[in-house]
Amino acid sequence: MPELRKDPIMGRWVIIATERGKRPTDFKTDPPKPSGSFCPFCEGNEDKTPPEIMAYRADGTLPNKPGWTLRVVSNKFPALQIEGSLDKRGVGIYDRMNGIGAHEVIIETPEHHLNLIELPTSHIQDMLWAYRDRLTDLKKDKRFTYGMVFKNVGKVAGASLEHTHSQIIVLPTVPRAVNDEMRGGKAFFDYRGRCIFCDIVQQEIEEGDRVVLESNEFLVFQPYASRFPFETWILPKRHASHYESIQRVNTEELAYCLKTALMKIDKALNSPAYNYIVHTTPLNLGEIEHYHWHIEIIPRLTKIAGFEWGTGFYINPVPPERAAEFLRDTEVG
Amino acid sequence: MPELRKDPIMGRWVIIATERGKRPTDFKTDPPKPSGSFCPFCEGNEDKTPPEIMAYRADGTLPNKPGWTLRVVSNKFPALQIEGSLDKRGVGIYDRMNGIGAHEVIIETPEHHLNLIELPTSHIQDMLWAYRDRLTDLKKDKRFTYGMVFKNVGKVAGASLEHTHSQIIVLPTVPRAVNDEMRGGKAFFDYRGRCIFCDIVQQEIEEGDRVVLESNEFLVFQPYASRFPFETWILPKRHASHYESIQRVNTEELAYCLKTALMKIDKALNSPAYNYIVHTTPLNLGEIEHYHWHIEIIPRLTKIAGFEWGTGFYINPVPPERAAEFLRDTEVG
Repeated sequence: MPELRKDPIMGRWVIIATERGKRPTDFKTDPPKPSGSFCPFCEGNEDKTPPEIMAYRADGTLPNKPGWTLRVVSNKFPALQIEGSLDKRGVGIYDRMNGIGAHEVIIETPEHHLNLIELPTSHIQDMLWAYRDRLTDLKKDKRFTYGMVFKNVGKVAGASLEHTHSQIIVLPTVPRAVNDEMRGGKAFFDYRGRCIFCDIVQQEIEEGDRVVLESNEFLVFQPYASRFPFETWILPKRHASHYESIQRVNTEELAYCLKTALMKIDKALNSPAYNYIVHTTPLNLGEIEHYHWHIEIIPRLTKIAGFEWGTGFYINPVPPERAAEFLRDTEVG
Repeated sequence: MPELRKDPIMGRWVIIATERGKRPTDFKTDPPKPSGSFCPFCEGNEDKTPPEIMAYRADGTLPNKPGWTLRVVSNKFPALQIEGSLDKRGVGIYDRMNGIGAHEVIIETPEHHLNLIELPTSHIQDMLWAYRDRLTDLKKDKRFTYGMVFKNVGKVAGASLEHTHSQIIVLPTVPRAVNDEMRGGKAFFDYRGRCIFCDIVQQEIEEGDRVVLESNEFLVFQPYASRFPFETWILPKRHASHYESIQRVNTEELAYCLKTALMKIDKALNSPAYNYIVHTTPLNLGEIEHYHWHIEIIPRLTKIAGFEWGTGFYINPVPPERAAEFLRDTEVG
């Protein structure tokens, strides 16, 4: 059973994922993974993954058989386990609970050789809709507090499989950064009576120099205090606290914005590894006025020195205004 | 002039280091750095660094000439600039100030081919004393709030030069992680009337399974909620809020503990890249009861997925008890 442990100083929860089978000696070398080797995410290999939780597939085709365009399965090496009770308790001054949660993989396409940005916008729209479908479903389980949707692309970004996929980790606790963002949003709301993210959208549109792309419903920009070169955020321009409340009609525009932003990054920076993360309101909260869902895209360009994640203090060598201009000027598709 | 910008949501300051000369296009490829090329930190090349701020050197030798055993110089590409005023001001809803501070390099030995763990304990003791000397000196400048001492070893840990060195970044603000630790320590102190770090030391010694090494004055252990495999902390067993208040007599024992911990990590894990960071009380505060200086050592074993530093939520595949046992069983020196 994986375990969740709370750092007593920082109040930060950590998953101690005992089930992933890593022994101390496993870290001595990086296991080589030959390109072109067997891929469990490819069409025809459906029996090599855990059974599918959901799929978008052609009429008349059977679950766990070919004929799908997008497929969601449990992670074969989950960081958290779905069955059991939380069993929260203290261990001296420490706190722990069982690692109850869900860890799912969204296989975005049956085709191994395609990157996300090579998929048609309508297909990316389906992926975004699948995020919404899964969060809506997982929300029903009252043990779960937070659904974290993210995507790792490239080895240095932590991807262990090449075949394009996203992941959802569903937690019994709110991740620290979201908690901190919510606290900051609450303090601003209490003082000014407005959503800080809505104010950011307005100021960014007015100033314009950090904007990468603007559509009717979404703003793509580089945040004022970007931690990393080319850190890029996508925000809905109208207030919306929960990602999963998105309307189908708006996913098309979001798919276009996400695809365009990723294509610009890909072209401007020679296909860097990257991560994106959907920041959204906890599953167990209703609509709130002080938090606003958004997507954070982080190209993995700089070597992150330990002190940066050890201290939460970042040095960014590229001003976001310069990065945004560079991306605006990068023509794509 | 580098600029400090505050994230309005998280309250996190970021250095936008415009002076480092990185243009967007510089990120397209990793510049190759041939091994065996010219090294400005080697003895005889003193004129290739900014002038020395301090050195431990043989009697009768001149500053910026050979004859030193340890040398402190300004970073040639500083993240912060020493001259000027802070000029704090708002930019709409955002906050900025000038990037005033110091960025120094401690060249630990004139010998290029030696790693830190190959230096005699007495030499490491000098290095630890140099940290103290510099913090004590920098403290006199009232613009500075925090002195962050750290070391990056290996390319994946962010080291750009091979020759063994540490760095000090002196800031006009307290790094977020230290702020959060202090807040946690304060809450615990207000509730229990004791230092949380002192309580941790006591519980770790009693339980013993996360202890790597114990000396009279220091405890080396893996924290209960370790974020990373083999994350290792060194704490003084007696309460001490400021690193720079360390007594000369205790630096010998600290040097022994640091060297032994690093040698064990080096041997057990095949010389991984690593970082360590000294967490200490802000320079402008007097002795306090709720914060306790310590060193955090982080071997760079796992690929950090973006979501981990994007969300502050960590998955650690190795329980600290297992890692500590492995290090205890690793015989060195």
